[in-house]
Amino acid sequence: MKIFDTEGFPNPARVRMALAEKNATEQVEFIPVDVMNGEHRSDPFRAKNPDATVPYAELPCGTCISQCTAITEYIDGAFDGPTLIGQTPKQRAKTHMMNLRAEAGLVDAVGAYFHHATPGLGPDLETDQNAQWGLTKKETAQHTMRYLDSVLAESKYLAGDDFTMADITAFAGLAFADFAKVDIPDDLNHLLSWRETVGKRPSIATG
Amino acid sequence: MKIFDTEGFPNPARVRMALAEKNATEQVEFIPVDVMNGEHRSDPFRAKNPDATVPYAELPCGTCISQCTAITEYIDGAFDGPTLIGQTPKQRAKTHMMNLRAEAGLVDAVGAYFHHATPGLGPDLETDQNAQWGLTKKETAQHTMRYLDSVLAESKYLAGDDFTMADITAFAGLAFADFAKVDIPDDLNHLLSWRETVGKRPSIATG
Repeated sequence: MKIFDTEGFPNPARVRMALAEKNATEQVEFIPVDVMNGEHRSDPFRAKNPDATVPYAELPCGTCISQCTAITEYIDGAFDGPTLIGQTPKQRAKTHMMNLRAEAGLVDAVGAYFHHATPGLGPDLETDQNAQWGLTKKETAQHTMRYLDSVLAESKYLAGDDFTMADITAFAGLAFADFAKVDIPDDLNHLLSWRETVGKRPSIATG
Repeated sequence: MKIFDTEGFPNPARVRMALAEKNATEQVEFIPVDVMNGEHRSDPFRAKNPDATVPYAELPCGTCISQCTAITEYIDGAFDGPTLIGQTPKQRAKTHMMNLRAEAGLVDAVGAYFHHATPGLGPDLETDQNAQWGLTKKETAQHTMRYLDSVLAESKYLAGDDFTMADITAFAGLAFADFAKVDIPDDLNHLLSWRETVGKRPSIATG
């Protein structure tokens, strides 16, 4: 499998963490995408990934898969190791629900703030800004942090007792929040303690 | 299982179609939510579904699951019948990818237009409008329609030869587009022909 991505970016980090959790990093070829020069918006790139985003995966058969959640579905099924999504219908549903809340409410919300209400990736790439939208989404991100804290007051990980894709998404979302200077309120003790625990996992500490 | 929803709304339609495809409609109790009077934003509702959206499912064990994709994961695993998501890692990844494209690019994009750039559900509920954002997302929706047409030029359904959750999401998205008066360009022959085929499925024609 090949992963086309940009190291250090928030969504690429999600897929790299999932691969590391499955001990599969060495089985993947990473191909750098020059997002800062707009490579992801070029016609050859869009032919493989019409979303014009990083990362995307090219499977051994040639099929291209974009969207972190979809790539993680592939990784979780194709490689050995503990599941990142769950075995039972209820576990799978809970993981997908919490993953979506962390994605829409944190990763995407911080992204909307960064790309719309700050200089973002610079004027050549941020051609369609909407500052009002970005500021609304900054509020969403901080509201989501408080919600995630309330979940973690009751459970070890976001979808229950086991570490899942939802934790990966939220962890990457908090890193993106730091980068974009969206403050994490310092009274969110459960969230901050969970972050410290997750940060010590081999998939992250050595990543 | 109980489904808390509002009949006729776009996201509730997705879950109702998934249940009908699995022949499971009769096994579910539907509980109406009075969205027009803001019931979904009340504290008791948010305690069950912090997303403040319809639909959500209450499983027999009491766990509540929101987000159509997560609810469909549960339905697909918990009930018999042909899978709506896929069996292999590649099929599952492709379904989730196409489902996300149809959700973000069509259902959510039409929703952003409807709620932000039209009177939407009225002034009591649309308290945070951003017309510029809504108009941008209308363009996204029409761009997505053209993209889906190009996919359907090459394949019977959106994720390949089999009908999946991605088709349900796109079908509900087009119905929402009609309702919100987002025109479907009439040269999208593959999309229109797929829509006619899907509309004849028992899960929809008798729904």
